[in-house]
Amino acid sequence: MSLVRIHNFSISLDGFGSGEPQSLETPFGHAGQRLHRWMMATKFWDAENGSAGLDNDFAERHSIGFGAEIMGSNKFGPPGWQDDPDWQGWWGPNPPFHTPVYVLTHRPRESFELEGGNVFHFLDASPAEALAVAREAAGELDVRIGGGASVVRDFLAAGLVDQMHVVQVPILLGRGARLWDGLEGLEETFTIEAVPSPSGVTHLSFTRKV
Amino acid sequence: MSLVRIHNFSISLDGFGSGEPQSLETPFGHAGQRLHRWMMATKFWDAENGSAGLDNDFAERHSIGFGAEIMGSNKFGPPGWQDDPDWQGWWGPNPPFHTPVYVLTHRPRESFELEGGNVFHFLDASPAEALAVAREAAGELDVRIGGGASVVRDFLAAGLVDQMHVVQVPILLGRGARLWDGLEGLEETFTIEAVPSPSGVTHLSFTRKV
Repeated sequence: MSLVRIHNFSISLDGFGSGEPQSLETPFGHAGQRLHRWMMATKFWDAENGSAGLDNDFAERHSIGFGAEIMGSNKFGPPGWQDDPDWQGWWGPNPPFHTPVYVLTHRPRESFELEGGNVFHFLDASPAEALAVAREAAGELDVRIGGGASVVRDFLAAGLVDQMHVVQVPILLGRGARLWDGLEGLEETFTIEAVPSPSGVTHLSFTRKV
Repeated sequence: MSLVRIHNFSISLDGFGSGEPQSLETPFGHAGQRLHRWMMATKFWDAENGSAGLDNDFAERHSIGFGAEIMGSNKFGPPGWQDDPDWQGWWGPNPPFHTPVYVLTHRPRESFELEGGNVFHFLDASPAEALAVAREAAGELDVRIGGGASVVRDFLAAGLVDQMHVVQVPILLGRGARLWDGLEGLEETFTIEAVPSPSGVTHLSFTRKV
């Protein structure tokens, strides 16, 4: 059976997956690029100048073995994108997903296709319902939960996640979208392993107990 | 000049230094002993059966070089201890501090002395005021901020801490006393280093930038 995986989900020490306010100019709010600098310094992100090594090894798993992505409304666009019929995401003509992408929103719109096998669909659905659709599309491949924080939390709370890679960045944001709310006892169903990187971040691997 | 240090302050992955509710029977609420098992397994805690090694090396620094401790009301006793004139703390006749201890409370009482050099004083004072008193008592030695979470936070927010050792335990408590609230930008004044232990916890060292 294909797995449900989360990769490269970066949070601050105080558990925020994004700062605030989120806008077209500041998709991660006052966090800016600080949560993702570790990733932008890897070959995964920057093939020419990025580094190999531990951070890159973790980062690359984001691209391997996926047949579909599910993302939340806040990942697809800034607040209010639903009112802009021309909004097609942040990623330009060839987004980095290269699979069907299912956007969870209470205001679904028509599907559309961009280059590179990126087909965006819009679902007003529960995590379990969305996963059933994405799994069908992914076939033998895995389904990635792309974030943001509230979508990751909802899938965790629903018990639908098999593997999760969280990257803890040593900054304190103080405000924004919390990853951990409402997840008391998560360690009962996951093995949790911490691996620190020379870059200063700590990679946390959650693996569902069998 | 003597330093202000925090040691062995254990938090869950979601940042709680204690569960809830705190009571005489459950000083750490629903967290029970889970935040401190790593420490109870060291020689520092259990000289006979505890382990040496990384966790013990970190834990032992709690005892070295201190001339005073400042603690919060919630560390000294369960809710309502102020109404019990006989309450003298959780630690029996010979508490593990062996220095003057300053308890921050809005309802100060008379100082008292227990065995082993443990003298308890009660202050209704700001962090800076309490630190001035404790520093005077500590002489050349350091002052420990003993917790709980809100006292650590208040001293951090006031810029009074030189070194902090936080131990991140891979559990999610979901509720309790948060350590990180209101500390946005703490990384600007501290170098932060993460060291994972074979026991599963991650030691976070905060060192004030000079």
